[in-house]
Amino acid sequence: MLMNAHEARLTDLRKELQRRGLSGFVVPISDEHMSEYVGSYAERLKWLTGFKGSVGSAAVLAGDYSGKGAAMFTDGRYTVQVREQVSGELYDYEDVPATGPAQWIAKHAPKGAKIGYDAWLHGIEWAEAAEKVLARKGIDLVPVDGNPVDAIWNDRPEPSPALAEPHDETLAGRSSADKRAEIADWLKEEGYDATIITALDSVAWLLNIRGGDIAHTPVALSYVIARADGTADLFIAKDKISPGLTQHLGNAVTVRDRADFEPALAELSGKTVAVDPERAVAGIFHALKEAGATIGRATDPAVLPKAIKNPTEQQGHRDAQARDGAAMVRFLRWITEEAPKGGIDELTAAAKLREFRGLSPDLKDTSFDTISAAAGHAALPHYKVDEESNITIPPASIFLCDSGGQYRDGTTDITRTVWIGTPDGSARPTPEMIDRNTRVLKGYIELELARFPVGTNGGQLDTLARMHLWQAGVDYGHGTGHGVGSFLAVHEGPQRISKSGGAFPGTGTPLAAGMILSNEPGYYKPGEFGIRIENLILTVPVEIEGAEGDWLGFETLTFVPLDRRLIDTDMLTPRERNWVDGYHAQVRALLAPQLDGDDLAWLEAETAPL
Amino acid sequence: MLMNAHEARLTDLRKELQRRGLSGFVVPISDEHMSEYVGSYAERLKWLTGFKGSVGSAAVLAGDYSGKGAAMFTDGRYTVQVREQVSGELYDYEDVPATGPAQWIAKHAPKGAKIGYDAWLHGIEWAEAAEKVLARKGIDLVPVDGNPVDAIWNDRPEPSPALAEPHDETLAGRSSADKRAEIADWLKEEGYDATIITALDSVAWLLNIRGGDIAHTPVALSYVIARADGTADLFIAKDKISPGLTQHLGNAVTVRDRADFEPALAELSGKTVAVDPERAVAGIFHALKEAGATIGRATDPAVLPKAIKNPTEQQGHRDAQARDGAAMVRFLRWITEEAPKGGIDELTAAAKLREFRGLSPDLKDTSFDTISAAAGHAALPHYKVDEESNITIPPASIFLCDSGGQYRDGTTDITRTVWIGTPDGSARPTPEMIDRNTRVLKGYIELELARFPVGTNGGQLDTLARMHLWQAGVDYGHGTGHGVGSFLAVHEGPQRISKSGGAFPGTGTPLAAGMILSNEPGYYKPGEFGIRIENLILTVPVEIEGAEGDWLGFETLTFVPLDRRLIDTDMLTPRERNWVDGYHAQVRALLAPQLDGDDLAWLEAETAPL
Repeated sequence: MLMNAHEARLTDLRKELQRRGLSGFVVPISDEHMSEYVGSYAERLKWLTGFKGSVGSAAVLAGDYSGKGAAMFTDGRYTVQVREQVSGELYDYEDVPATGPAQWIAKHAPKGAKIGYDAWLHGIEWAEAAEKVLARKGIDLVPVDGNPVDAIWNDRPEPSPALAEPHDETLAGRSSADKRAEIADWLKEEGYDATIITALDSVAWLLNIRGGDIAHTPVALSYVIARADGTADLFIAKDKISPGLTQHLGNAVTVRDRADFEPALAELSGKTVAVDPERAVAGIFHALKEAGATIGRATDPAVLPKAIKNPTEQQGHRDAQARDGAAMVRFLRWITEEAPKGGIDELTAAAKLREFRGLSPDLKDTSFDTISAAAGHAALPHYKVDEESNITIPPASIFLCDSGGQYRDGTTDITRTVWIGTPDGSARPTPEMIDRNTRVLKGYIELELARFPVGTNGGQLDTLARMHLWQAGVDYGHGTGHGVGSFLAVHEGPQRISKSGGAFPGTGTPLAAGMILSNEPGYYKPGEFGIRIENLILTVPVEIEGAEGDWLGFETLTFVPLDRRLIDTDMLTPRERNWVDGYHAQVRALLAPQLDGDDLAWLEAETAPL
Repeated sequence: MLMNAHEARLTDLRKELQRRGLSGFVVPISDEHMSEYVGSYAERLKWLTGFKGSVGSAAVLAGDYSGKGAAMFTDGRYTVQVREQVSGELYDYEDVPATGPAQWIAKHAPKGAKIGYDAWLHGIEWAEAAEKVLARKGIDLVPVDGNPVDAIWNDRPEPSPALAEPHDETLAGRSSADKRAEIADWLKEEGYDATIITALDSVAWLLNIRGGDIAHTPVALSYVIARADGTADLFIAKDKISPGLTQHLGNAVTVRDRADFEPALAELSGKTVAVDPERAVAGIFHALKEAGATIGRATDPAVLPKAIKNPTEQQGHRDAQARDGAAMVRFLRWITEEAPKGGIDELTAAAKLREFRGLSPDLKDTSFDTISAAAGHAALPHYKVDEESNITIPPASIFLCDSGGQYRDGTTDITRTVWIGTPDGSARPTPEMIDRNTRVLKGYIELELARFPVGTNGGQLDTLARMHLWQAGVDYGHGTGHGVGSFLAVHEGPQRISKSGGAFPGTGTPLAAGMILSNEPGYYKPGEFGIRIENLILTVPVEIEGAEGDWLGFETLTFVPLDRRLIDTDMLTPRERNWVDGYHAQVRALLAPQLDGDDLAWLEAETAPL
């Protein structure tokens, strides 16, 4: 039935394209802010094709074409999933980066074809590169006037009506005026009149506001034009303006309707404007060019100061983590005791964890969809449990849970891997599980204990987390660490600890004191089990006797027991063993005051020296 | 007196520039092949300014300018040296990369100025970037017709008359025809008709020839045009052609005069030609463009296969290292016994090492100027001893020696750091020296014992060599590993183990089985002492039980004792201590058969277990 619905939608789209004189169209997962997660109103690819992943795109040809005339483009993470969710009769499956939409269209569309794209959903660099690839084949790439998917999507959800609210300076640690002054100084230094801020978390950071328009990320759909004189225009749907917001924003910030944003770009005629090609859509570049503005391509100036947490934000994270740790301990005790009996499924576990987190009145949301993964599901790093995939957690297996909370004072993100035993306690993890988990732990410790000179980037540190796995000839296929916002996006740039040259930028960005990162090495055995240990860590200056120059290291932010049944103490060096015992002592000291009864007893047992 | 000579030369150059209607000129250290080391005929910067470093450039303005009208551009390595060798009355000192010639000229030359550069000494990307920087200030950058320095340099040395000779296939391991067929296949695949090979070691590798035109690097000044049909033209001065060379090259290679190279580029009219922007000078791009050829910018296709040593070359390196190791042992015993008495100076030590290496009839040359550095000189990683700098090696100090040999079957490069005691044996290294040397050793071992998945690059491995120094808040300001040729350049690309984003490319190049690299961490305490441990290592496939995918590791090539007096065994893990003892056992087994008497006794004592 679904299949038929998607076939009908594809047919409708082709008719709509022909009506507009287009030979084809590209459908990404994106919104006008190039957000990582998008609101349901922007889930065009899912509606059209059935694909539920978070990264991918489709190309659809209309009229004259060779083959199926439609293709899905996904990366290695979704090779299996795309085949389950999207009809292979309607769409070719193509692997990114080997073949992207432009390469596929160049091959399948005829010379002279006119391919549309929505310039408010694609980056300028994508558009420029695709244009070149297609031009070589005599194919035109043209921006459309209104998205053709929207034209045929009858029950398209309305954009979220959530209110935008002030984020108090006692939490933000800095006034918006102070932040705007920093941006204004940068604009003046670089010779710009203004900059366009389109990343939703940048807008939220800059104006000290929070919203509820994107799942798990407390941001409001809005744009900002910030000027070298410290003033700014905020473009936001009028009905989102909460009581007190205008006053909070003050006189230097003019609130304008979101619909006025595109016309407002014309006001920048003759000005020199900084626009971020990684974060602003092509439509903004087009509109500014048409207006006669001079465009300078530069990284959004809010990105770096947002990543460097001030002392208030740092303390907020510590406070949020203490609450989150108590919830995690309740959850871990519960699952360790209940799951061995059988009958606990992945969805139930995720719901239970949400319940424990919700005991704190400060919890606003989870920070992403909880990865609650039993047995072989744990081997899928990006597994997302739903009604269809949900399984009972089998006794004598590994359970992996990656989750986080959004608190007013901080965003958390933690992964623990737990041995689910049997009721009689007789089942033990396999030697392989223990070996792999211990190597993941050694890598975690190696990175956390690293000291490094100012100027070092995440690409240089990544190997520390992998080296002990590499000695055994195994690795993990994801990054080691991403930035985390302060009651903002759980994935935040610009820094990143990962193999350099990967799919995401940031491994060349030097780490700076105040940056928060995840530290999350793992190991995945397809179909059998998966392991990941993840804490958040704060980049801090370190004093070293006899040091030459300035040095950085990490402070642990996340405090939750590690599963000792999965650790082989013989594989640990004295330094590593000391780290585990010291960490567990800190966990106990921080969380014990919040717990009692069986939870407290469990905490004490689990945090005893190895 | 020298000062006056350099002042007169600068005045002459200014007159020459004015005569040609030029407002300025840029003088790099480079030749027509963009060689790292250049023949004396190309040492224009040294002749003009007195600067003896290997990396740097000057800009000279003539007529209308502000300030001194001349500047020297050097990087951090030469901050001290440039001030000693070049007159600050004549030249501004500028730091690269902060300020390059184009930036400085843009600031000091008037609008409308016409600045010359020799397009046969600069890369195309430098020329394009400099042109843009200058254009913004209304200044023109123009290629000159004949180098103006050459016009005033009366006693300019002639290019070397050394012969070019065949490099036997029993050493090369592959025929030139086979190599040319590989390049031809690549050209066909990529749709090119031909490629221009300008890097001297690429020419030597491709045609299996060696020469003597560049100090310490057995290459001949020559160019190659290689075609998709497997044929090639070699452009070389006629008087360099050794007996048998033409026959060795065979019918598919046409030998033409070096002077015909530029005109021959015009023959490529209408062809599609691959040219390496990192290795071919701008003049080649200009000539091809003028000829109406289509230029594709691509890495010299000889670079990667040259770096991946075949089994014959690998065995050649092992054989050369065994000889080199015996020479090093004789030298180390000699210096350890003689230097504590006082009276041995740096030049004498370097000469003695050359003498020991020369005991092998297979030695053709040293592979670079020996770094023979006593006490504070050892803290200068690129120290070059000469009559002026030469000092007596003081008893109770550290002596650092970085040297190598050119043998027909392999090129060596080794650094050892030696404690020079006192005759009564009472003086001991300081705890700081021992701590730093042990950390350098730990880093060396960490890198050598690394195992890593195929696809890993040198930028990812670099931190392994630094991590133990970083724990103590210290680091070293140079790369960790460079490629090494087979009886070719001691510095060779494309691979490189270093902090990514440094001055040299290559840290993003995946390491491949067969690549040879140096492994040379160090520590330098300005004015006091310097430490470096360097061996060559060969990238090899490794079998790991339970491994997933394909894994690489390193095989040690260099076998020479480490100074045990500088090692704190308490700082070594059991794994590290085992490595040292195992390494020393290999050293003993390999070198003992070549030594006798006191040398053998010394070897046995120095290679006993720690």
